[in-house]
Amino acid sequence: MTVSSAGQATQPHLDLQAPPPLPAGGLRVMALGGLGEIGRNMAVLEFDGKLLVIDCGVLFPEAEQPGVDLILPDFGVIEHRLDDVAAVVLTHGHEDHIGAIPYLLRLRGDIPLVGSRFTLALVAAKLREHRLDPVLVEVAAGDDHVAGPFHCEFISVNHSIPDALAVAVHTPAGVLVHTGDFKMDQLPLDGVLTDLGAFARLGLEGIDLLLADSTNAEVPGFVVPERAIGPVLEDVFRRATQRLIVSSFASHVHRIQQVLDAAETHGRKVAFVGRSMVRNMGVARDHGLLRVAPGLMVSLDEATSMPPEQVVLVSTGSQGEPLSALGRMARGEHHQVTIEAGDTIVLASSLVPGNETAVYKVINGLARLGATVVHKETAMVHVSGHAPAGELRTLLNVAKPRYLMPVHGEWRHLRAHAALAEQTGMAADRVLLAEDGVVVDLVDGKAAITGSVPVGNVYVDGLNVGDVGEESLQERRILGDEGFVALTVVVEPSTGTIVRPVHLSTRGFSDDPTAFDEVLRLVEDNLKRELSDGQTDAHRLSQVIRRTVGKWVSDTHRRRPMIIPTVLEV
Amino acid sequence: MTVSSAGQATQPHLDLQAPPPLPAGGLRVMALGGLGEIGRNMAVLEFDGKLLVIDCGVLFPEAEQPGVDLILPDFGVIEHRLDDVAAVVLTHGHEDHIGAIPYLLRLRGDIPLVGSRFTLALVAAKLREHRLDPVLVEVAAGDDHVAGPFHCEFISVNHSIPDALAVAVHTPAGVLVHTGDFKMDQLPLDGVLTDLGAFARLGLEGIDLLLADSTNAEVPGFVVPERAIGPVLEDVFRRATQRLIVSSFASHVHRIQQVLDAAETHGRKVAFVGRSMVRNMGVARDHGLLRVAPGLMVSLDEATSMPPEQVVLVSTGSQGEPLSALGRMARGEHHQVTIEAGDTIVLASSLVPGNETAVYKVINGLARLGATVVHKETAMVHVSGHAPAGELRTLLNVAKPRYLMPVHGEWRHLRAHAALAEQTGMAADRVLLAEDGVVVDLVDGKAAITGSVPVGNVYVDGLNVGDVGEESLQERRILGDEGFVALTVVVEPSTGTIVRPVHLSTRGFSDDPTAFDEVLRLVEDNLKRELSDGQTDAHRLSQVIRRTVGKWVSDTHRRRPMIIPTVLEV
Repeated sequence: MTVSSAGQATQPHLDLQAPPPLPAGGLRVMALGGLGEIGRNMAVLEFDGKLLVIDCGVLFPEAEQPGVDLILPDFGVIEHRLDDVAAVVLTHGHEDHIGAIPYLLRLRGDIPLVGSRFTLALVAAKLREHRLDPVLVEVAAGDDHVAGPFHCEFISVNHSIPDALAVAVHTPAGVLVHTGDFKMDQLPLDGVLTDLGAFARLGLEGIDLLLADSTNAEVPGFVVPERAIGPVLEDVFRRATQRLIVSSFASHVHRIQQVLDAAETHGRKVAFVGRSMVRNMGVARDHGLLRVAPGLMVSLDEATSMPPEQVVLVSTGSQGEPLSALGRMARGEHHQVTIEAGDTIVLASSLVPGNETAVYKVINGLARLGATVVHKETAMVHVSGHAPAGELRTLLNVAKPRYLMPVHGEWRHLRAHAALAEQTGMAADRVLLAEDGVVVDLVDGKAAITGSVPVGNVYVDGLNVGDVGEESLQERRILGDEGFVALTVVVEPSTGTIVRPVHLSTRGFSDDPTAFDEVLRLVEDNLKRELSDGQTDAHRLSQVIRRTVGKWVSDTHRRRPMIIPTVLEV
Repeated sequence: MTVSSAGQATQPHLDLQAPPPLPAGGLRVMALGGLGEIGRNMAVLEFDGKLLVIDCGVLFPEAEQPGVDLILPDFGVIEHRLDDVAAVVLTHGHEDHIGAIPYLLRLRGDIPLVGSRFTLALVAAKLREHRLDPVLVEVAAGDDHVAGPFHCEFISVNHSIPDALAVAVHTPAGVLVHTGDFKMDQLPLDGVLTDLGAFARLGLEGIDLLLADSTNAEVPGFVVPERAIGPVLEDVFRRATQRLIVSSFASHVHRIQQVLDAAETHGRKVAFVGRSMVRNMGVARDHGLLRVAPGLMVSLDEATSMPPEQVVLVSTGSQGEPLSALGRMARGEHHQVTIEAGDTIVLASSLVPGNETAVYKVINGLARLGATVVHKETAMVHVSGHAPAGELRTLLNVAKPRYLMPVHGEWRHLRAHAALAEQTGMAADRVLLAEDGVVVDLVDGKAAITGSVPVGNVYVDGLNVGDVGEESLQERRILGDEGFVALTVVVEPSTGTIVRPVHLSTRGFSDDPTAFDEVLRLVEDNLKRELSDGQTDAHRLSQVIRRTVGKWVSDTHRRRPMIIPTVLEV
């Protein structure tokens, strides 16, 4: 149990003002995303008038943001300074780290993108879909790269996607280290460890400010090795006598590798299902990150024509996406795959918060059809990609940063990370609890919060970026909960008469088409009274309609649909 | 890990017809709720033309049912036979077991309600709010009660609310046992055990059909005793130096008792916060179920005027309800309680699936304000009220039912329960996997699924019961995701002219008020072309508007708002 006073010294900075100008020789850090939320990670560093961006990801919307496809970091703060951006450094290829790049490159297409080979391959595939032709700078662990005044050094870290990097940024102001996302699997499938030696060396040289992944700061202990999942998958394969489907994240190369290995052992062919799975595994295979035995892969068409017990389908849809292949199978609506009683489906993935209802709906749909569903709550078919408390403490003890700025997390994670830092002996005032837009300046070896800049949510909806804002969302929330009733009346102001009876349109209020019949008469009566009093002003008549309907619906139904009166004059 | 063939013999009964008439001497069982879902538990038994109802609860809506307050069991099947209902037996006082009673009693007010003292006290309080005066029949564990042809025998069970009962229903057709919700805490705080002896005796006499709680069938092992939470709460109290707030379910008397005990030990006064907490704890205290030391309780007004370290607030809001006291505190909007850095908040409750986002929002809000939040993922401040796999196997081995009908669960739970039954040696065809509306008949000692009756979702929205249906919800989902655009035009058919320019109303589509300016001209052009061709039919003109706007918005925005054209003729 954690009951501590962590991070109490640092209060939420609700009253922060714009920061003062950055003193000469100082390094400025601010996050445009990823602090106070899980997703759209984007940190901006400033030194001597130049900017370095670390990651540029998207956030997936919640129920409170209905109809929104994606949420971008708010580029407003750097939009007028894009020519100052020396580079975008990408720590790894997950959507919450690379997904917003197309939108940034639309503003300036030739910003260099610096990242590992696999990361850039995923970025390149994404940008091709957006018809963008980026400037790519490939780096590997151990490499240095100089972007303007920022001397970047790359460090290998272990995560739930191959080829992930941390970055140390050397500037005359000091050394900043950003872990990206990481964990410390000591038996990684590809042998690529989080390079504690490099963190130790940097620690000895002196890390002024560490930005470290907070996602699992509330989780005690250490990660279970990814390879512990192999025997569990083996067991599933051994018992499965019919169709077998394994669903996971489309970028989790190591997880998919273990499925392929089990398939080979048990004589099943493998078919990938889902656009992103096919694309990413193609990239991984091309880069030698996914080992595929000759003859192992078949197409979905081939797979569905083979006896079910001779194939394993590797599919997207592990987060309950209704339009995914697995989602359609669970509803019995997939045109090629029909789930039979006795089939086995494995969800070899985490359950991303907010997706629970959708995931359980898929599991229930499959269970209803008679399938056995193996998921992380019933078997160890998933381990997290993020360092839990024990590993975060280890990193802090090895890297010995002068200051810590917890990143990548909601407030509960950031504060838990702060508590861990205090446990390792860091003074409370050495932990900088910031959220999106909060500015941290490193000047003369001292890091401090100096202000904040305005940041907001930039919503992507269809082809639109930014035109759906909080006002539209608030309207959607009301419409979605209550529906609307629109009443239109045509009046002739010169005679004070109603030319057409009140016309009613209503949606989402009632399945009963006569629900408003009673109030229509009331509206007409009230309008006629106004008109006979000589009141013909359209705005006033609209108010009469709104008040009449609003009171009636509240009194008789205790509900508050959106009321939209329209008075047309002829 | 559970990878088994459980329940494969029983397929989902999508093609089931209405059941044949119940043979003389047969017992019919059907669930109107609670099978295939967690909530609105309601089983209906029929023998010799008479009906016995077991529980009558509500289901809370999900995101797919926007704006809905409650979901009721569909009474349609029994609505025309309410005079045949001999009694409603209530197993315990949770909302998902008693919440729909007011709506049933509106149809027939004098149906006897049979239940334990505490259950009936909670029901009575609820019915007073609905201005209903019920017929209450109090029973206790060990009691018999005859309702028509149903000889009911009550058995004590242990659950997360006091005074819970299972019921054995003896009829000439055989013996049916319904567990209600239960677990087997072997060290219950009130000493009331699940009476395995009674289940064993009934098993020896012969249980023909067991209906048993499936909620935790996927969870391995046995429950941790409720009293294990005491030391954890003790530790929280010991460390807390400032304000302390414990949030839990308003009916969890034993959990609240442990908070009161810790408060007494640590010299803190206690104030209840939240209407249902105040009401239910008052009832519990009146019935001797909650022991309150003299002078321990204070009002919230008194509490807020005392030094924070001398009080503990016991509050509702553990499920993240935004309007609850805790929800308002987390946003800094509570008018009496302001959270300070260093305060401690305990969420001593489960996280009901579907509520994750809301709960984490509250936790993050509190963490942002500097509070330490202790919740079930960081400390053992909650144990479940439902029997996990080990206890379900134990019950099956003790009760030795001839047939099992898993109840109270989504499909994943029902099927996991079936798997447990098969592990204990029950033949697959002895496990009846049914969902809401599926009819199980026990005739000549044999139980089988014989058909299904139509059941649906009955939505409560404000004062309306049933008039919001699937059509309204579908409209709400579209409106909530996409918004709408309404276009109204007034035409004079006799002259083929547009009397008024097209009037536009749009909500939830864009924050930009000019978003549709471009298409308005297009609509007018297309309308004028139609009119000049002599086409004045309002329906046809509406179609022109719909097509013009639909194509434009799809081409330019890749979005699909609801389009509502109105053509008014003068």
